[in-house]
Amino acid sequence: MNYLKQVVLLLACFFLSLNLIAQSHPSLMLTKVKLEEVRKGCQSYPLLKSSFQKIIADADLAISLPITVPIPKDGGGGYTHEQHKRNYNAMLNCATVYQISKDIKYANYVKNMLLDYANQYQKWPVHPKSKNQKDGGRIFWQSLNDFVWQVYTIQAYDLVFDALTTKDRTTIEQNLFMPILNFFTVDRQEVLDKIHNHGTWNLAAVGMTGYVLNKPEYVEMALKGSKKDGKTGYLAQINQLFSPDGYYMEGPYYQRYALLPFVMFAKAINNYEPELKIFEFRNKLLAKAIQTALQLTYTNKAFFPINDAIKDKTYESIELVYGLNIAYTDIKAEADLLDIAQQQERVIVSDAGLAVAKAIAEGKSEPFKYKSLWIKDGGNGDEGGLGILRSGANTNQQCLILKAASQGMGHGHFDRLNFLFYDNNQEIFYDYGAARFLNIDTKNGGGYLAENDSWAKQTVAHNTLVVDQTSNFKANVTAADAQHPDLMNFSAHPDLQVVSAKEENAYADVKLLRTVALVKVTESNKPLLIDVFQASSANEHQYDLPFWYKGQMVNTSFKVDAQRNNLQALGTQFGYQHLWLNAQNQLDENGGFVSVLNNKRFYTTHFVSDNPLQVKLVSIGANDPEMNLVDGKAFMLTQPKAKNQTFVNITETHGNIDPINETVSAASGNLTDLKLISSDENKTVISFKIKDKKYQYQINYNQKDNYVVLSQ
Amino acid sequence: MNYLKQVVLLLACFFLSLNLIAQSHPSLMLTKVKLEEVRKGCQSYPLLKSSFQKIIADADLAISLPITVPIPKDGGGGYTHEQHKRNYNAMLNCATVYQISKDIKYANYVKNMLLDYANQYQKWPVHPKSKNQKDGGRIFWQSLNDFVWQVYTIQAYDLVFDALTTKDRTTIEQNLFMPILNFFTVDRQEVLDKIHNHGTWNLAAVGMTGYVLNKPEYVEMALKGSKKDGKTGYLAQINQLFSPDGYYMEGPYYQRYALLPFVMFAKAINNYEPELKIFEFRNKLLAKAIQTALQLTYTNKAFFPINDAIKDKTYESIELVYGLNIAYTDIKAEADLLDIAQQQERVIVSDAGLAVAKAIAEGKSEPFKYKSLWIKDGGNGDEGGLGILRSGANTNQQCLILKAASQGMGHGHFDRLNFLFYDNNQEIFYDYGAARFLNIDTKNGGGYLAENDSWAKQTVAHNTLVVDQTSNFKANVTAADAQHPDLMNFSAHPDLQVVSAKEENAYADVKLLRTVALVKVTESNKPLLIDVFQASSANEHQYDLPFWYKGQMVNTSFKVDAQRNNLQALGTQFGYQHLWLNAQNQLDENGGFVSVLNNKRFYTTHFVSDNPLQVKLVSIGANDPEMNLVDGKAFMLTQPKAKNQTFVNITETHGNIDPINETVSAASGNLTDLKLISSDENKTVISFKIKDKKYQYQINYNQKDNYVVLSQ
Repeated sequence: MNYLKQVVLLLACFFLSLNLIAQSHPSLMLTKVKLEEVRKGCQSYPLLKSSFQKIIADADLAISLPITVPIPKDGGGGYTHEQHKRNYNAMLNCATVYQISKDIKYANYVKNMLLDYANQYQKWPVHPKSKNQKDGGRIFWQSLNDFVWQVYTIQAYDLVFDALTTKDRTTIEQNLFMPILNFFTVDRQEVLDKIHNHGTWNLAAVGMTGYVLNKPEYVEMALKGSKKDGKTGYLAQINQLFSPDGYYMEGPYYQRYALLPFVMFAKAINNYEPELKIFEFRNKLLAKAIQTALQLTYTNKAFFPINDAIKDKTYESIELVYGLNIAYTDIKAEADLLDIAQQQERVIVSDAGLAVAKAIAEGKSEPFKYKSLWIKDGGNGDEGGLGILRSGANTNQQCLILKAASQGMGHGHFDRLNFLFYDNNQEIFYDYGAARFLNIDTKNGGGYLAENDSWAKQTVAHNTLVVDQTSNFKANVTAADAQHPDLMNFSAHPDLQVVSAKEENAYADVKLLRTVALVKVTESNKPLLIDVFQASSANEHQYDLPFWYKGQMVNTSFKVDAQRNNLQALGTQFGYQHLWLNAQNQLDENGGFVSVLNNKRFYTTHFVSDNPLQVKLVSIGANDPEMNLVDGKAFMLTQPKAKNQTFVNITETHGNIDPINETVSAASGNLTDLKLISSDENKTVISFKIKDKKYQYQINYNQKDNYVVLSQ
Repeated sequence: MNYLKQVVLLLACFFLSLNLIAQSHPSLMLTKVKLEEVRKGCQSYPLLKSSFQKIIADADLAISLPITVPIPKDGGGGYTHEQHKRNYNAMLNCATVYQISKDIKYANYVKNMLLDYANQYQKWPVHPKSKNQKDGGRIFWQSLNDFVWQVYTIQAYDLVFDALTTKDRTTIEQNLFMPILNFFTVDRQEVLDKIHNHGTWNLAAVGMTGYVLNKPEYVEMALKGSKKDGKTGYLAQINQLFSPDGYYMEGPYYQRYALLPFVMFAKAINNYEPELKIFEFRNKLLAKAIQTALQLTYTNKAFFPINDAIKDKTYESIELVYGLNIAYTDIKAEADLLDIAQQQERVIVSDAGLAVAKAIAEGKSEPFKYKSLWIKDGGNGDEGGLGILRSGANTNQQCLILKAASQGMGHGHFDRLNFLFYDNNQEIFYDYGAARFLNIDTKNGGGYLAENDSWAKQTVAHNTLVVDQTSNFKANVTAADAQHPDLMNFSAHPDLQVVSAKEENAYADVKLLRTVALVKVTESNKPLLIDVFQASSANEHQYDLPFWYKGQMVNTSFKVDAQRNNLQALGTQFGYQHLWLNAQNQLDENGGFVSVLNNKRFYTTHFVSDNPLQVKLVSIGANDPEMNLVDGKAFMLTQPKAKNQTFVNITETHGNIDPINETVSAASGNLTDLKLISSDENKTVISFKIKDKKYQYQINYNQKDNYVVLSQ
């Protein structure tokens, strides 16, 4: 066995060398064999044509300016940082235009810039703004950006390779790329071997450079880690960073980001070594990861902003353009991917982009198939996951996400069993995302703000239960990483979609179990969102359940009497220090409701519990001396002292206003008489009326097949 | 002379009777003579076709439901209110579809509903929710809505007239329309004779009904007032409510609203009595009013929300659809109006709508010509006005409005010399508008909230100077109505657009003079907004100049150290009681700056003054027990004690962020060294550098021709 393994390895190395010797340029995204067809496509297929025209415009702008390769100095968002980013984009754009147009001036621009870098690179020490010696870059403040720079730059080099003299190639390879490979694999070896997105970018840069420079030993390091033992490296990363469903443990924002080096390097591997069948690896894992990334978006195009996430990031970002083009062309030509490509409004000027633009031009596009899904988390798929429930057409979709995934390391938030709710192309109950102004130098250099830890990661910043004003796992990442929620039930039945999950470790002596459902009833155009949150403990606790809403509160069952002056913070830690307590009401056992107007539609949340609730109205902004936080408002259901507590709430979507025609319809909800009949470890039973028709809704925690039952 | 007048009057009456006798149906928006052409156009011109299809859909929905004419009970937004609104729309839609399709079922629906109203109307007393006996309606809580109801309903009646038996006509006219005419002209005579938009709706209803029912005495009352002496009535209203530039003193929101009865009635007059040449009246005043209404919008389609205004009201509203269709067809066929019609995405299914849809189908549309304008206010055009400066293409327009208009009666705000600033299709420095949730029954019945008086109307809620924390005219409407600002200078020169105005009566002993300009310099893509605000007094005062901004503050020249807890209201009255004081800084004589990120673009406001300034960061929300106010933030420049004070500020538009591609450019401004060199009653001189080039900017208050000079 051990002997056999060695043989296979040897054999693999043999093929590797063989292929590399026979290589031609370009051979990455754009290949020599497809060049003529892509050239023609840039004239004839509208999406490829407009994408190419955009690249020409960018390339022409670049070559109209002097080549500027400044000595690295500034952090994220600062001048030298942005200039070096502009440079790699300019090189790739010019190199692409050179191959399509055959105009040598574009190749010369790339050549001259590469020579400029080659002339300087070895003089640059680790970046002066680097935070530590372990992961500082030389061009950028963090080595991550250096890896990205190289992933793009090596493509540009591959594209202009044929236009360079042997002397220039030697200069560029010896003075720039080889020192870079050395920096990445020796100085940043620890990063290379890390099972983490920084590691992916490093190895993709190393592997792609290895292919283009015909240095198989670097390709091997990229695939199998610096020790070439397969314990780290590309294949190990695919195995460990993604769940069997293609979910990336850090969440959608980083899934998108991590995806690009995986996909680009896969394409390179597939071009150079098709016999490795990399796209088939781990049961077509890369295809799943791309599909899952798209399923982790709402119809507003944005990724679900769970964990550390910049909220305006959408599937229009370049990572998903590459991902989609390659998924369609190299993995499986699914017609609904073309819909997304049309929304992206661009393709990569490449072999893959050609195929996508051609298919769209041929009218093959179909509406994207958003799905209701349980997406498993964890390398083995056994560490919780994300439940996604959807209802309605793509133009008017309701979507509910239950976050029951693992912690996701340092970028994870302490929001076990958090939910997000969307409708009408808007956030209804939302996630704050990260406290960060990406690339805004004046805001902590564009990095994460202190409030990301003190606020955005804390449990109370989410739509989930907080016990004793303390975050899950007391906001300890190591403790949180060791535990995960578990799925109780999932059903995508169109009339009654359910996801239910439990978390028994976030608090020492409290078990959490949440069951959310989109429930169709004939009396309402839109499904009801029914949410039952059980907290069970042998001891007494305070339970807070906030609902972070967008829009304007326009009605409440209780009289709001907000604090007029001397506004106070609600607490001192775990995010509570950032909340202003605007108002507070004690309700009776009948519960109450809150109505919100959001994008011309009404949302009324009715709530009841087994113990009378308090409702607190809170807003973001206390203890924020630099005013880093973004405004936000929540209503928070509070039970100051109970052992077991079941929060029941139903959100109905109703009516609308038309400010143009000055009309309003169904401003009041149709749901009444919400009652919690019973709740224990076996079942929860509630009842409610809608337009005077009575319904009973029952959750059977121990019955897999009749987990949730709606009856009249 | 008196004799002659009587003759003319008699003659007019003669013609009037003559025409009315010879009348045919329909004769209002849709006329018998054009019917066949409109029918064909509904098949062939896309915009008319889609507009008609929408009406068919609405009509079909209406006739699929039982006719419901409830006894009036609810206030604005409530069930019976909305049902009666739905009814008049349903009748007009069905009546229109009847005439186009000739399908009698639509006429029968209208007939049956009219008979239902005729059977009930006389039993209805003044509406139980009416606020007083003077202006309560019978169908609605205020008679205004009854007038509107009748303006639409009489059109429906006119359209189905030929389909009704003589008996049904008699029933409807005797039991519904004649009692309505009696109610409007006798019980609501005071409203009819009021020079006010309620009066306009009343007389349009009376006049249009008079034409259709062939009751010339009612037409005459509509034209000349209940006493038929011309002191009130339609012509008097045109003379008094509009300035010679077609500006309606209450502001754009009410201009839009008031316009509809003027335009509809004008069309009726023109059809029945073309010899009156109503569209020529007062130098084509109605055409100017329609054009001015369009010029009072920004490229986001919304009206400038000065005075009491619902902010999401746009030129898509039905009033402007009617106005535009009639302006194009009956007054002057200006090609750029077609652009707006395309944005409105509908035409009225009518003679006028036919012409517009036809012209668009023939490709005659041109981009709408937004202008830089001084729009005079006051019946004689001598009561101040609005200055509008614009720069750039319609897709990327910068727009600055200086409000130097008269008070505008009860809906006016105390915001003399307020400015609004727009760019990139967004509000940059904005106006709060009205504190009102239109038609949201749970928010004070959809009417103006208490906070409209306590906050929205107050000076500090605007981007203008507040003296001694007291509003203009101590917020007394009568005092404010008696005074108006005056124009000092206006120039629409594309490189240096200026509007300058003074207000000398808003405060007992302080004179205010503000000069705003959009100034092009070669170093900046976008013009600089240069704002010089002089306050002059013999006595010492506190001066506060707030800037209400949208977006996120991302940089300041001073260290922000916001209040961490125990947030306090800034004052006790004149709107200050609603402001939270978040932070406060004392600056030195060099002034400072604030940078805001808004819709991915940066705006940096640099400021300096002759005395060192304080900067206060404030937000809306204090003393708002029902949480009626909408969130908002401002930076406020404060001078606690000075006699004369000149606030100089320059706002530069720069850079951008691209969250999809994660790039940022020019996050820092290019302007430095802003200095106030001198300022007195003759001139203000300032200097600044931009990209190290020095400029001097001088205002010569006494020189008409060189009022503002920019030099290097």
